[in-house]
This record gives sequence, C-alpha cells and structure tokens, in this order.
Amino acid sequence: MNLAEYIDLTNLSKTATMEDIIKLCDDAKKYHFPIVCVSPYYVKAASEYLKGSTTEVCTVIGFPNGYNTKETKQYEAINAIENGAKEIDMVININALKNKDYDYVKDEIETIRDSIDGKVLKVIIETCLLTDEEIIKMTEICNETFVNFIKTSTGFDREGATIDAVKLINKHKSDVLEIKASGGIKSEDEAISFIEAGATRIGTSHGVDIVTGKKNGNEKHQCCGHCMCHEEEKK
Amino acid sequence: MNLAEYIDLTNLSKTATMEDIIKLCDDAKKYHFPIVCVSPYYVKAASEYLKGSTTEVCTVIGFPNGYNTKETKQYEAINAIENGAKEIDMVININALKNKDYDYVKDEIETIRDSIDGKVLKVIIETCLLTDEEIIKMTEICNETFVNFIKTSTGFDREGATIDAVKLINKHKSDVLEIKASGGIKSEDEAISFIEAGATRIGTSHGVDIVTGKKNGNEKHQCCGHCMCHEEEKK
Repeated sequence: MNLAEYIDLTNLSKTATMEDIIKLCDDAKKYHFPIVCVSPYYVKAASEYLKGSTTEVCTVIGFPNGYNTKETKQYEAINAIENGAKEIDMVININALKNKDYDYVKDEIETIRDSIDGKVLKVIIETCLLTDEEIIKMTEICNETFVNFIKTSTGFDREGATIDAVKLINKHKSDVLEIKASGGIKSEDEAISFIEAGATRIGTSHGVDIVTGKKNGNEKHQCCGHCMCHEEEKK
Repeated sequence: MNLAEYIDLTNLSKTATMEDIIKLCDDAKKYHFPIVCVSPYYVKAASEYLKGSTTEVCTVIGFPNGYNTKETKQYEAINAIENGAKEIDMVININALKNKDYDYVKDEIETIRDSIDGKVLKVIIETCLLTDEEIIKMTEICNETFVNFIKTSTGFDREGATIDAVKLINKHKSDVLEIKASGGIKSEDEAISFIEAGATRIGTSHGVDIVTGKKNGNEKHQCCGHCMCHEEEKK
C-alpha cells in the first residue's frame, strides 16, 4: 500500500506562516503527496508554488463552524477555485441539521457542488457533534447529492475521526461516495486502520511521519516538551 | 452600574437550534440586553424576531479562524448587513499578522470598515495566540483604522479574555477605541473586573447569570454534572 496516495497533507493552523506553507508544499513534493490542504488565505500562494508539480491544492469552506450563510459559502468556494484550488472541503450547516432542516443542508451542498466547475467536493459533517442517526442522514444526503467525499471532521472540535464513525458511514454510503477520515490521525498504524474501515482519503498534518513509518508523529521530549518530529531530518 | 448595558448576549454554538436562538432573543428582551450576537446563519431570523424591540443583532465574520480571503470576509460582512446585522465582529487574519504582513491586516480591516455602511465594527484579535508585542501592534492598527472596538477573543481557542490582555490594550489604545472582552466570562464579579480593567463591552453566553448576580454561571451539581443555571427560574 502506497500510503502517500491516500493523504491530504494538511496545515490549517491559524498561526501558520508562509514559511510553514512552503515547508508543507516541499514535503508534499518530496514524498509525493497528491494534495496539500491549506486555508483559503494560502490557496493562491500554494497553487503558484506548486505549479508544475503533481501536487494540487485543497482548501476549506465555511470552516470550521459551518454556520456562514449559504451565499457566503458559495462565494468562498468560487473565490477558492479562482485562486487555484482543485478540491473543496466544505463544512455542512450543523445548526440546520440540528433543526432537522434537511432541505437546507442538502440545498447548500448542491449549491456549492454546482458552483465549483466540477472540482472534487468533500462534505465535512463533524461526526463528534452528531448522533448516529444524524451521521446516517448525512451519509444519505451525500449519496443523493453525488458529492465525491463525505469527510468526518474539521480537527477543530473535541474529537477527530473515529473508526466507529467511518464504519457507520461505510455501511450506509453508496458505491461511488468515498470517505475522508481526518482529525487526530498521526501514525502509520492509525492511517491503515482508517483505510481498512473504509476511508480512501486521510487528512492529516502528520503525513510525513505516516509515510516514514513513525509510530508517534507528535512524540515529544519528556524533559522539555519539545517536539521530536523533525529531529531525524536535521541530523 | 447597569451591567446589562455592557453585554452582547451571545450564542455562537455550532449546534444551537432555532429554539435556542429564540430563547436568546427572549432573554435579551426580558433583561434589556442591547445586543444579541449570533452566527451569520441566524442573523436574518434573529433580526426579524427582534423587530420592534430595543435589542439589535451582532454577528461574526471570518469566524473563528480568520483565514478566509479578504474578498470572502467582505462579502460575508455585506451579506450580514443585508440580513439585518447592526454590529460586525470580524476576526483578523492571524496568519498574516504572524507573517508580519501588517499592511494586509490593516487593509483587510479597512475593507470591511468601508463595506458595512457605518455599522459598528469590532476587530477580534484572539489574544491567546498573540505575543504582547502583537497585541500592542494590533491595538495600534485599530487606533489607526478608527474601528469602534478591539475585541479580545473568539471563545473558540484555548483561552478567552484575560485581565492582563485588556490592561495591555487599554494602555495603548486611543481615547476613542473601545474594548470588548469575550470568552469565558461567566459571573458578575468577572464582568466587573473586566470593566474595571478597561472593557466597555462584554461578550458572553452567561449574560442572564451575570445580571441576576450569580457568582458561578455554569455551576454544576457535583453528583450528576447537570447544570444549575436555570433551576432558580424553574422554582
């Protein structure tokens, strides 16, 4: 299994600098990750930097809270495509789902889908905030709207992807809908577990650790708390 | 001191239902809060529900991560005003600040300021992610751009408002710039402390607890973990 092919190498930190995004793009080129996922603000810079490579840019819409208006999300998606994004990860309107306003949730997804010129669309449902019934309902809506992916999590709530949630989605999804597991996936073992549960895409900031076989991507020195992630490369 | 006048009664939960927003608006009317702060998705409903009352609607832009493009934030702000918002709380582009791209940060604020038809503008700087130098720099930018408020926090990061941050802003702000303290303010004592430190506005979901003099707005039963907040009202 070539794990790199499954990974959207991600940096959605609010404090990420341009230097961090360049590092992300360089890692993607070095390890042959097909996608980097960056904030809308960095889409243009990343797209220009990656020109001529095989890595493309994904970004996030209505992220991470999902409660922007439908019109704003549509504007943001079109703006992202204009800036060079090839894949769009949109957060559903969780409030509307909680109101059982399924027509709104579905119409919003269709609005974005029809605005992005056939680019790949992933629908983030934030599983940790949903009941099993709501996860199934959202899987059905993603089936019906023929989006490319249903994505588990933003990584900005109390829990990321879980194996149980991926299995539940996998049980109810159509043959063509794919699953992106994201949020908190840090090791090769974890990535493989999610793929075995049904995911065909992994969103993670620990892609390099995963493809280089590290077991604990964010291992830290016990003494000082500093991250060990890139120490081997520095040697 | 009439504390209600200082408070933006807030519900920005991703899972807030329409019922929760109606409750927020009813509380605002009952206790004479001048402002409710809701997500862009709920601006229209809250504005219509509050028509004829003295309470007005505030919303959030580029919230909470701040890394939407300038164009998207501008679109979102205009859309919010069209839907009835009278006050706009925008998150700065923290990434750009970390890149020391102060021109971008400032230009974005001016773009929003000039797009909202003279409505009240509050600039959220997310103090917990900034150094003291960055807090001072943002206070200077808010002075220079003549926005109405500098606001400490989104409530969606690791820490909300601190007395130290409010004091630091207060020391460097112009005479006309006001301070909104937000995130984690739950009791009357806390609210008064922030006002004494220089805040003239408090953003909180615990407004009712604060004006009814509760000391611990989110006090919970030790036995079962259930919230005690509204038990007195039920009696």
